Amino acid sequence: MTTPLIDCLQYAQFSASVFEQMHKGGVHAVHVTIAYHENFREMVLNLEQWNRWFEQYPEWIFKGVDERDITEAVESNRTAIFFGFQNPSPIEDDIGLIEICHQLGIRFMQLTYNNQSLLATGCYEDEDTGLTRFGRQVVREMNRVGMVIDMSHSADRSTLDAIESSQRPIAITHANPHWWHPARRNKTHEVIKALTSSGGMLGFSLYPHHLKGGSQCKLDDFCTMILDCAERYGVEHLGIGSDLCQDQPDSVVTWMRNGRWSKDTDYGEGTADNAGFPPHPSWFNNNTHLVNIKNGLLTAGMNDADTKAVMGGNWRRFFASSFKPG
Amino acid sequence: MTTPLIDCLQYAQFSASVFEQMHKGGVHAVHVTIAYHENFREMVLNLEQWNRWFEQYPEWIFKGVDERDITEAVESNRTAIFFGFQNPSPIEDDIGLIEICHQLGIRFMQLTYNNQSLLATGCYEDEDTGLTRFGRQVVREMNRVGMVIDMSHSADRSTLDAIESSQRPIAITHANPHWWHPARRNKTHEVIKALTSSGGMLGFSLYPHHLKGGSQCKLDDFCTMILDCAERYGVEHLGIGSDLCQDQPDSVVTWMRNGRWSKDTDYGEGTADNAGFPPHPSWFNNNTHLVNIKNGLLTAGMNDADTKAVMGGNWRRFFASSFKPG
Repeated sequence: MTTPLIDCLQYAQFSASVFEQMHKGGVHAVHVTIAYHENFREMVLNLEQWNRWFEQYPEWIFKGVDERDITEAVESNRTAIFFGFQNPSPIEDDIGLIEICHQLGIRFMQLTYNNQSLLATGCYEDEDTGLTRFGRQVVREMNRVGMVIDMSHSADRSTLDAIESSQRPIAITHANPHWWHPARRNKTHEVIKALTSSGGMLGFSLYPHHLKGGSQCKLDDFCTMILDCAERYGVEHLGIGSDLCQDQPDSVVTWMRNGRWSKDTDYGEGTADNAGFPPHPSWFNNNTHLVNIKNGLLTAGMNDADTKAVMGGNWRRFFASSFKPG
Repeated sequence: MTTPLIDCLQYAQFSASVFEQMHKGGVHAVHVTIAYHENFREMVLNLEQWNRWFEQYPEWIFKGVDERDITEAVESNRTAIFFGFQNPSPIEDDIGLIEICHQLGIRFMQLTYNNQSLLATGCYEDEDTGLTRFGRQVVREMNRVGMVIDMSHSADRSTLDAIESSQRPIAITHANPHWWHPARRNKTHEVIKALTSSGGMLGFSLYPHHLKGGSQCKLDDFCTMILDCAERYGVEHLGIGSDLCQDQPDSVVTWMRNGRWSKDTDYGEGTADNAGFPPHPSWFNNNTHLVNIKNGLLTAGMNDADTKAVMGGNWRRFFASSFKPG
């Protein structure tokens, strides 16, 4: 069976041209973000847009809900699109909305996006409370229905709490090790160790603020870091979550960072001088470039089986065990 | 294969006790109303309540989405619950919400409930415009996704328009012939003929206002009427849609009739003197009584195969061809 090519986080300005690049790039599954600060009702409008795209571009994309859709993607040479939220805003304060969202196809949810949420603490807060009372209930319900807890934008204590509290392995879909590049969004050794020791997955990010050297990061540096992680944490827990933000106008990163929560401007990982989306590295700025990472891993000395695992096999296994009721 | 027992419309005050009666009555599938005047967001709260019931009472009920769930119900001796709306309020003015609702499991939608809607005209209006511009778009979209058009509470011209406009057979899930009992909600020969000639289904109602003699209607009279219909329209187009409103307080019928659209009180099929739910006939007031109708049909002279078809076989066939994308 062909090993699939999977990117476990993108938030491009999706369009026919991006879908065609997914197809040309031979990408079999992409986890796409469909909400940041949207409430439930607003998020449904985003789902409607995706339904239209599935209707308009069936030769390139279709909705993915379980691991069988990856088989379907490989067999039909198309891309299965899996949905996720980067913030729990769409479930509002209602635990019943988790199952409703799962029924609508949502397969990942971050418990926080930078800020404190009703569930846990984001990585930009000064104080980290860990999981809240509601947060513990939500973790249990996500475990029950088969929705993956994603802690990419969460603070450390909250992340360790979620790993401990969850009965099923969780994910950090898009981040790199802090020991490689000490950005606020990258993860400490302790967090990655706890994540992977409990069966969880780390997706490596190509977002320039997470890369050593930023937009100028070298492919070889990035791939060598992955080999180091394979040695430290076990290759079976590693995948790609590129955080590709292709074609997005800067107004979108402003929305991602500020939502409706601030009258001041929050620059997140950027600065007032450099507020917009940073340019992606030249060797990874669209879906046809995933093959560059694959080749980079082989060049850096990773064997063929491990490379296939990192490029999609591991996510496939994780999807297979994560999306059904537990 | 066992022929299933199917009731294609109930709006009981659902509870553990009603679910247990479904189980004791050997009812394999029930189409339940989950919205009258609720907008989309309010309807989602009703879905959440059903999700809780499915979680709490898995030995009796589970969510039905296609014909395979009827097989599952027969094999596991449980009841598959299929969802429907009696008014298009949950889709608001947004055609994209039809597919979202289908993804959430909605399988039937009435284009109107008594009044003019954005789609068509209800049976209590003075003027019947037929399908509106939005209504024609909605019929096409319901055909595409696999949601059944139900015209039980619609006016005649609108109903004939829907039958003509729909590419797939439609349903009148709960009504009786006007020639048997000339109530406003019962359907003319012309409507039933057009419905059944195009492959549509008529579900016979046990709601007293639709019965000759009301709550005192005799089982034999009801069953003889079904035999007459079999002769006129073909037995293969007939089923049961009891409109069972068991255990409902009268406040609910007030909501059904008045929603938020009127400051005056509308009495619908009732009157100021008789405003509440009328008592069901003694031979049909809960789910264990479906067998009485079956026996009544046999006593009235219907053969075994036809009786099984009316009691569930016909709905099963209709479900099998109606709920998948068209």
